[in-house]
Amino acid sequence: MAQQKKMVEAITSRDVDFAKWYTDIVKKAELADYSGVKGCMVIRPYGYAIWENMQQDMDKRFKKTGHENVYMPMFIPESLLQKEKDHVEGFAPECAWVTIGGSENLTERLCVRPTSETLFCEHYAKVINSYRDLPKLYNQWCSVVRWEKTTRPFLRTSEFLWQEGHTMHETEQEAREETLRMLQVYTDFYKETLAIPAVIGRKTEKEKFAGAEETYTIEPMMHNGVALQGGTSHYFGDGFARSFDIKFAGRDNTLQYPFQTSWGTSTRMIGAIIMVHGDDDGLVLPPKIAPIQVAVIPIAQKKEGVLEKANELRSRLIDKDIRVKLDDSDKAPGWKFSQYEMLGVPLRIEIGPKDIENGQCVLVRRDNREKAVVSLENIEAAVEQALKDVHDSMYNAALKNLQEKTFEARTHEEFLDIAANKPGFIKAMWCGDSACEDQLKDETGGVKSRCIPFVEDHLSDVCVCCGKPAKHMVYWGKQY
Amino acid sequence: MAQQKKMVEAITSRDVDFAKWYTDIVKKAELADYSGVKGCMVIRPYGYAIWENMQQDMDKRFKKTGHENVYMPMFIPESLLQKEKDHVEGFAPECAWVTIGGSENLTERLCVRPTSETLFCEHYAKVINSYRDLPKLYNQWCSVVRWEKTTRPFLRTSEFLWQEGHTMHETEQEAREETLRMLQVYTDFYKETLAIPAVIGRKTEKEKFAGAEETYTIEPMMHNGVALQGGTSHYFGDGFARSFDIKFAGRDNTLQYPFQTSWGTSTRMIGAIIMVHGDDDGLVLPPKIAPIQVAVIPIAQKKEGVLEKANELRSRLIDKDIRVKLDDSDKAPGWKFSQYEMLGVPLRIEIGPKDIENGQCVLVRRDNREKAVVSLENIEAAVEQALKDVHDSMYNAALKNLQEKTFEARTHEEFLDIAANKPGFIKAMWCGDSACEDQLKDETGGVKSRCIPFVEDHLSDVCVCCGKPAKHMVYWGKQY
Repeated sequence: MAQQKKMVEAITSRDVDFAKWYTDIVKKAELADYSGVKGCMVIRPYGYAIWENMQQDMDKRFKKTGHENVYMPMFIPESLLQKEKDHVEGFAPECAWVTIGGSENLTERLCVRPTSETLFCEHYAKVINSYRDLPKLYNQWCSVVRWEKTTRPFLRTSEFLWQEGHTMHETEQEAREETLRMLQVYTDFYKETLAIPAVIGRKTEKEKFAGAEETYTIEPMMHNGVALQGGTSHYFGDGFARSFDIKFAGRDNTLQYPFQTSWGTSTRMIGAIIMVHGDDDGLVLPPKIAPIQVAVIPIAQKKEGVLEKANELRSRLIDKDIRVKLDDSDKAPGWKFSQYEMLGVPLRIEIGPKDIENGQCVLVRRDNREKAVVSLENIEAAVEQALKDVHDSMYNAALKNLQEKTFEARTHEEFLDIAANKPGFIKAMWCGDSACEDQLKDETGGVKSRCIPFVEDHLSDVCVCCGKPAKHMVYWGKQY
Repeated sequence: MAQQKKMVEAITSRDVDFAKWYTDIVKKAELADYSGVKGCMVIRPYGYAIWENMQQDMDKRFKKTGHENVYMPMFIPESLLQKEKDHVEGFAPECAWVTIGGSENLTERLCVRPTSETLFCEHYAKVINSYRDLPKLYNQWCSVVRWEKTTRPFLRTSEFLWQEGHTMHETEQEAREETLRMLQVYTDFYKETLAIPAVIGRKTEKEKFAGAEETYTIEPMMHNGVALQGGTSHYFGDGFARSFDIKFAGRDNTLQYPFQTSWGTSTRMIGAIIMVHGDDDGLVLPPKIAPIQVAVIPIAQKKEGVLEKANELRSRLIDKDIRVKLDDSDKAPGWKFSQYEMLGVPLRIEIGPKDIENGQCVLVRRDNREKAVVSLENIEAAVEQALKDVHDSMYNAALKNLQEKTFEARTHEEFLDIAANKPGFIKAMWCGDSACEDQLKDETGGVKSRCIPFVEDHLSDVCVCCGKPAKHMVYWGKQY
């Protein structure tokens, strides 16, 4: 057990230094590494396998809702980026610019895409001519670049991987429905696949996406009470369509502008998984996206029949499409236990001579350490059930954390008190004025409006900041 | 039939103008479109779906041979690119350079990756310490940028999508085996998935990859007698390892340099599919990667029971994981026939009232237009068999083309005559001197050495160019 202890000691405790705990996990679980380019990361095999599992799951959801994948260029000519005023103002300050191609200075510099609205619009202007061409429901998986000053693996990096959906619709109503549909797809994905609950709603004017009419967001709560913008879905109206002169002949034969949406999620979801589910022993992965779902650890593996039985077990689970790793290396079982705990593998199976004699094995859950002796006869069903149970327990634990870290403030004083002493969401009334958002942010060292939920509680009649009549109940909080 | 005819007329005939025929197909089948950035393309949904099917198939082959996916940054600092002398000389002239990040001029400019050997080496230097860390078998799916002067969709673009494998091994032998293993994986993929035969072999010194000790290549033959470098696999020895100071403690506890490989294929394979299999009516897609494998076209679809039966047929095939599209739009059947021929859909099923009455349907193959009346009772098996038959026929037709377009030249005169009059591969002896390669290229307007095959014929004792003793038999040809 000495080795096991040593390994566990290597991670900073979550409650002692959350930021260090986070980077320790990223490093020790070999999710990502730094590269020679400031703010750019190397996503290592284990981290990338998590991303691949997320991608496959989301991609199915996108295709089921009628979307098709495409690939747009990674470069945006400066003049193209400038076509939509609000958009360029939002993104130009964080663009990386290509100014030399081959050995020639370019006559027009090219931005490495920070997001691709402008590229999609340029293409849509060519291929949308009639209402028969609508809707266009495109999505793209790619990397984007935003020149960030302060970076942290997965959470904020100068380059990151993401998906960006860009759709065009005949009517405003259809586009608004799409915006909310994709917010719901994200919410379902967070719940059903990542075991992460979240608050969802609409961003305030101040916080919405550059160029959007409305931005909707999904905001999960991290273990330390800091929120994370987990995905956004934007309704653009016909603003970009007008700037890019995208027109179609409508059913009445008049030329019309289509209505647009975009929506995106990124590798920062891996950061969310770490910070929602992880503990002092490392990662805790939701079973649906765990690269290894079950680690089979043979006990006294040199004894006759142990490895044979462990291998048989492995094969039976693989036949059920369960992702299994049998570790028959010469490391001690205790070391292996720690290692697969660190990696967040949802289930561990211990199998030794006595277990085999009794036709059983020991099933250990990563999330709550529960051990169960299980008959080998129905091991497939037991593992499948346990994976479901782990998922549900993880979701419920995360929900409990979100609920316990959600507070209500009815007065300015109460708001400042909670902001100073109780990390989490603050529900509070707001007048609708961005000056109050600025003031609250300044007074609290960074508490911002997260979103206006679809169903608002009525906590009082007046804005928690200025005391004027309240328009909305807002979720507030610090964010990554 | 008027509409059908009109549609077909819209494609240039393959034998009249091959280049125009090619771009017509790219456009009419909606595979790709041009973008506002010179040499960068938009890959449209149908083209991207082909790429996704290729990716999934290859990715399984990579994982089956033990490889893991990762993601490296898209930027390479100039100093990093310069670490390996031959490599930087090969790639620097076609790099796109980022010189501004946010609003600041960068102190060191960053190259948008043209290939990622240097990034992988930088990472490997950190994570390889012991022989226990080897082999490292990494692959990456990403986009790369090479600033090309003349571009053509899929074949040569300034940005393209690809996969690049980068592996590190304990011994030279292991690395050499890996290099050839991946060439074989590519060859199998071309044959089993793309229905494309090819010549494989080793590149001459002059044609190998910048920084490699050996480059192996797979060279399929296009319908017009021009070859295409379809994928390459490189053995690097320990050259990069020395430049990047990658060392590991060996089994004997001495510090050693590991041995390296890299291998890649790209979206240009879509170009190969067009040019190997396509005909005057459009694309002809290999069934394994066709986004739609079967187009179901109802005849007299307004008659009672037709659409119902067509839908039932569709469902039955989908249950067998066959990719089916039922086109019940109000277009005429003739128009639909042309449309799905243009899109290269391998099989068409026609089903009308009389067919239904007789419990049958008509199955039409895209590749050779063969029609068969098939009982509805076993339609699943019939379609599965027909898809296999289409694949095999396509492979055999492509093989026939490759064989018919392979010539032997025993003298200089014969070489020049074939080069001038018979497009295709020329098998001819070579002394090993690159001066002869230069001369033959100049004399023929671009015929270059394609590869030295693993089994060389002995056509004569002397070099076809200089008459000195021959070292190798080489495949020569023009290339895309």
